[in-house]
Amino acid sequence: MKVHTDYLWFNTKKRQEFVRITDEVASIVAASGVKEGTVLVSAMHITAGVYVNDDESGLIEDIDEWLESMAPYRKEYRHHQTGEDNGDSHLKALLIHHEVIVPITAGRLDFGTWQRIFYAEFDGQRDKRVIVKVMGE
Amino acid sequence: MKVHTDYLWFNTKKRQEFVRITDEVASIVAASGVKEGTVLVSAMHITAGVYVNDDESGLIEDIDEWLESMAPYRKEYRHHQTGEDNGDSHLKALLIHHEVIVPITAGRLDFGTWQRIFYAEFDGQRDKRVIVKVMGE
Amino acid sequence: MKVHTDYLWFNTKKRQEFVRITDEVASIVAASGVKEGTVLVSAMHITAGVYVNDDESGLIEDIDEWLESMAPYRKEYRHHQTGEDNGDSHLKALLIHHEVIVPITAGRLDFGTWQRIFYAEFDGQRDKRVIVKVMGE
Repeated sequence: MKVHTDYLWFNTKKRQEFVRITDEVASIVAASGVKEGTVLVSAMHITAGVYVNDDESGLIEDIDEWLESMAPYRKEYRHHQTGEDNGDSHLKALLIHHEVIVPITAGRLDFGTWQRIFYAEFDGQRDKRVIVKVMGE
Repeated sequence: MKVHTDYLWFNTKKRQEFVRITDEVASIVAASGVKEGTVLVSAMHITAGVYVNDDESGLIEDIDEWLESMAPYRKEYRHHQTGEDNGDSHLKALLIHHEVIVPITAGRLDFGTWQRIFYAEFDGQRDKRVIVKVMGE
Repeated sequence: MKVHTDYLWFNTKKRQEFVRITDEVASIVAASGVKEGTVLVSAMHITAGVYVNDDESGLIEDIDEWLESMAPYRKEYRHHQTGEDNGDSHLKALLIHHEVIVPITAGRLDFGTWQRIFYAEFDGQRDKRVIVKVMGE
């Protein structure tokens, strides 16, 4: 059994941003030598998520707008009494979820035609990390 | 370590449908010979999900109605400028999530009494797939 | 390859409650002897979830209020025709999701600074369980 771990770093220009990471994850899987198994891709933060969906720019804007409607920026979150102003970022991260598990078959991400991995930043403009953990043989 | 991979195919009669797949997943786990481990059950599409919850017909209708209220069908999604009309299907899939990991103990799905696995189709009436990947020993 | 399984039991005083379980999961990982791998933490119920986010009391109240706004208690759920009154608990569990996978590196939960694991009870005051399944080597 092989276990291979790597990390991806982000420092987005905008507070909220969606970053394509499929190629980076695929490279880590290739480097791991794992032919059959899974790869965990998981944000190491409480205001960021990882999801799998379509790489279509209109849809990405739809997702952005939808998340804002579901978990809007508001001054009134109790969390802001700590001095933070990112209550909505936490809720957006919970909604989109912070991790995915991607299957690996014959050494490649076993995805459908349109599946792509995204890092969803909800409180950026600082160094943040995603762990990529490959397991299999 | 054993890794065993199989696929389930769907072609639903309706655009949106919830399909029970617990028995199919359990059969694949039995065929794998894995006694201790996990099974990944993951939609290979960006307009379908997989979830674990109750097999009660009233609740399934509640879930259907709730998803429609949270991510309604609308003409105005930007994604529709590509010619698609399934923007809501993407958002529903993100909300319900596209995958689950189910524990395997003593060769069986280690579920609570009421837990069942569902394939949630949000843009059906075409061939679609779920990957079932068993890992363990 | 090692696979180690344990269970956490809950019987919350309130119907809805968020319980910190990071230390309990870390203890099970330590007992497993797994140095590199993952741990699945998964509710064995259809009215409870497991999530990773911040241990800040104001935020936990924000999450509680947000979940209520997204999946409110209502008499009118079809599921209630079975005699149940917990339709909202199912929807809240679907929204927050019922499981997480946490990476293990060098024998420890490989978390960012603020990540903590929570059991989210939406229909408590009875015995309920979470499975903790460690896999790796």
